[in-house]
Amino acid sequence: MATDRVPRVVIVGAGFGGLYAAKNLAGAPVDVLLIDRNNFHTFTPLLYQVATCGLEPEKIAYPVRGIFRDQKNLNFLMGEVRSIDTKQRRVTVQTNGTTRQEAYDYLIVAGGSATNYFNMSQLEQFSFELKNLDDAVTLRNHLLQQFERAAWIDDKAKFDAMLTIVVVGGGPTGLETAGAMYELYEHVLRKEYPYLRNQRPRVILVEATDRLLIPFPEDLQKSARAQLETLGVEVVLSNPVVETGDDFVKLKDGRVIATRTLVWAAGVKASPLGEMLGVKLQRGGRVPVLPTMEVNGLEYVYVVGDMAYLEDKQGKPYPMLIPVAKQQGILAANNIARQVVGDSQHTFSYKDRGTMATIGRSRAVAWIYNRIPLTGYLAWLAWLGLHLISLLGFRNRLTVFISWVWSYWTYDHSVRIILGRNSRETKTERLPDTVPVPEPAVRTANTP
Amino acid sequence: MATDRVPRVVIVGAGFGGLYAAKNLAGAPVDVLLIDRNNFHTFTPLLYQVATCGLEPEKIAYPVRGIFRDQKNLNFLMGEVRSIDTKQRRVTVQTNGTTRQEAYDYLIVAGGSATNYFNMSQLEQFSFELKNLDDAVTLRNHLLQQFERAAWIDDKAKFDAMLTIVVVGGGPTGLETAGAMYELYEHVLRKEYPYLRNQRPRVILVEATDRLLIPFPEDLQKSARAQLETLGVEVVLSNPVVETGDDFVKLKDGRVIATRTLVWAAGVKASPLGEMLGVKLQRGGRVPVLPTMEVNGLEYVYVVGDMAYLEDKQGKPYPMLIPVAKQQGILAANNIARQVVGDSQHTFSYKDRGTMATIGRSRAVAWIYNRIPLTGYLAWLAWLGLHLISLLGFRNRLTVFISWVWSYWTYDHSVRIILGRNSRETKTERLPDTVPVPEPAVRTANTP
Repeated sequence: MATDRVPRVVIVGAGFGGLYAAKNLAGAPVDVLLIDRNNFHTFTPLLYQVATCGLEPEKIAYPVRGIFRDQKNLNFLMGEVRSIDTKQRRVTVQTNGTTRQEAYDYLIVAGGSATNYFNMSQLEQFSFELKNLDDAVTLRNHLLQQFERAAWIDDKAKFDAMLTIVVVGGGPTGLETAGAMYELYEHVLRKEYPYLRNQRPRVILVEATDRLLIPFPEDLQKSARAQLETLGVEVVLSNPVVETGDDFVKLKDGRVIATRTLVWAAGVKASPLGEMLGVKLQRGGRVPVLPTMEVNGLEYVYVVGDMAYLEDKQGKPYPMLIPVAKQQGILAANNIARQVVGDSQHTFSYKDRGTMATIGRSRAVAWIYNRIPLTGYLAWLAWLGLHLISLLGFRNRLTVFISWVWSYWTYDHSVRIILGRNSRETKTERLPDTVPVPEPAVRTANTP
Repeated sequence: MATDRVPRVVIVGAGFGGLYAAKNLAGAPVDVLLIDRNNFHTFTPLLYQVATCGLEPEKIAYPVRGIFRDQKNLNFLMGEVRSIDTKQRRVTVQTNGTTRQEAYDYLIVAGGSATNYFNMSQLEQFSFELKNLDDAVTLRNHLLQQFERAAWIDDKAKFDAMLTIVVVGGGPTGLETAGAMYELYEHVLRKEYPYLRNQRPRVILVEATDRLLIPFPEDLQKSARAQLETLGVEVVLSNPVVETGDDFVKLKDGRVIATRTLVWAAGVKASPLGEMLGVKLQRGGRVPVLPTMEVNGLEYVYVVGDMAYLEDKQGKPYPMLIPVAKQQGILAANNIARQVVGDSQHTFSYKDRGTMATIGRSRAVAWIYNRIPLTGYLAWLAWLGLHLISLLGFRNRLTVFISWVWSYWTYDHSVRIILGRNSRETKTERLPDTVPVPEPAVRTANTP
């Protein structure tokens, strides 16, 4: 880059990979343009708490411009990337009804992941996902609406389907969601819905393979299952979903579960942004990168996080986890800064501090540094502390902490409100109980 | 009521009137059915703080079932009342695609108020209102989107319109909204949008009459105006809006203000539920009631709060204020309890503790017991304390308090996120920068 102009780095995505890349370019002699379709960064590990009425959505969303208020070399564009031209070095962004071309000298693509339905269109139509904040609010609205409906329905079969929740996927998201839903049901909703007092809540966790939490050691896998089952969650293993509909899930062994709520947490794939790069993709749509995080075969283009396909020394691809994304984002930023001044680039080596998954109040498993196994209360405390420290912004951390302490003391989940168009025009409306009645033409304020 | 059956009281609306009526029937020998189209009660005095990124919407919404968890004689139905049959004594409720008939022995209608556009369809189309939580979130999303758009636009005229906010209405809502918007702009957004650093924010408060806060004494009216103007808000008096469009407001004196954000806080009318009662309505669609809160000419039907038309001893109708609604709700409940046991009913007498309006940080006016005038810091403290005490639920009160203290210390408004379908399919999208996008065919519920 032998120009007088300051090089321009365009970063696509304000998830963990993009955010840490942008932060690490603060002191570099570059201009940074960060692009995201939302104006906020989402703390995704707590989406399930938003979906289960434990936290306000705003608590885990942090405005991008607030994060970078003091970083003078950064500008933000809210919009969606529609194409990437790696020859002309520019991206096309759609933003509020207009289209912009943004030129780059260096590009970091950090689009994260999307739900993988493995081409099962039924599944996509009838299930809920938990990948972003809108998903979480939509699921929260849906769940609460099922309870309100069930309160006034006579048909026993429909009633049962409304009160049965099926979570598919034995990874951390599946466990966390199933556990939190059971607790919401058992400790909060039962007290508020008279018809639930003598009803056993049904939350069913379904996993296709024969074990939960595949990357964990076997004793932690077993502990996780035991903790779920003593809580009250039904665990079904070795049983993939073969069919889904409006009000049922069918498993491979032939059993049919009547449910209005299927949460699909059994698959992720890379963001479709990878397809815009014109290179051959790896499994799950991931983009093969060099250990410098540069895309194999492209100049000036880096891919980090869930979208990047890079193998470790054992030949296994690095997992789609937040710490990987963070560390890769930092490396890509530093490598660009090195390229700008003509230094040689560094290569990725993952500092793995282990993994953990929470199941509920005082229930969790943790595998610290992939050496020390923790279960139950201790693992839960470790999980709590880690996530609290990771939440961005002092105010958010303080109020999240208060929410958690409060929930722990009182078993309260007080964010039980059905708010927004999400509640009316999404999947929640796909099966009216009887006849569809058109929405009123004008709904005026405060009219119940 | 000489039956063995316990009498059934149906309450329509979980606003302040309906809520306090329901609470006051806790010990009475009746069954209570509370109906609202939302599953939560809204603390409406703080809607403007949600719209200006100061509070999460969930902070001022409290789930109805949570409020009445321990009230065994109450059931809740989430739905919308479509008709009232005062002869057969039943209401028709639409709930989740189905229609229910609910019989009553006694009915309390507490539907509150709606925005009054005085039949100006332009105004309804192009302005934002602040009557419910969805309105507040919609306005928040819109405001933040204007700033994101303005960051990337070259056309100076469009740029100015995006950054000019016009609030119409010189009552407390208008003052509070204008003041909070100015503070959001001045203390938060200016620091995060580089293009705003040298830009003067424009927030204009427009009032049709020659004074602000009409029911207040003149010195408080003048103080309110002075406090607004020293803050930075432009105040325009004696100048009704005569025309509005996508991107302008025209006033009676001929001046045209280019703006993309018109907040209409200049009129309310009673909920259209009143029309279902088949009685002659008063001005603003209010239902004439006896001093017992029973509807003039109907048996077993009470109307309370904003919907009720009742004159005080001076012949002036009681104002559409929360304390009036609360006290009337309590009276109606107690009168029903008296009727059930054959006691004679009481009549309404209003305990007026005065009124207040806040303008911003340390800026307010208060007229305690309609005798003691307070201005500035003291009035602001009084306002703060009163609202904090009034917020339902200890957890909400505590976290709202933290939010406020935090905002005061840091000038932070950290809830600056654009979330939900509200941000994509409402007025915010009505004027794309280039190509026109058709309005959604049906403007449902939460679209103002």
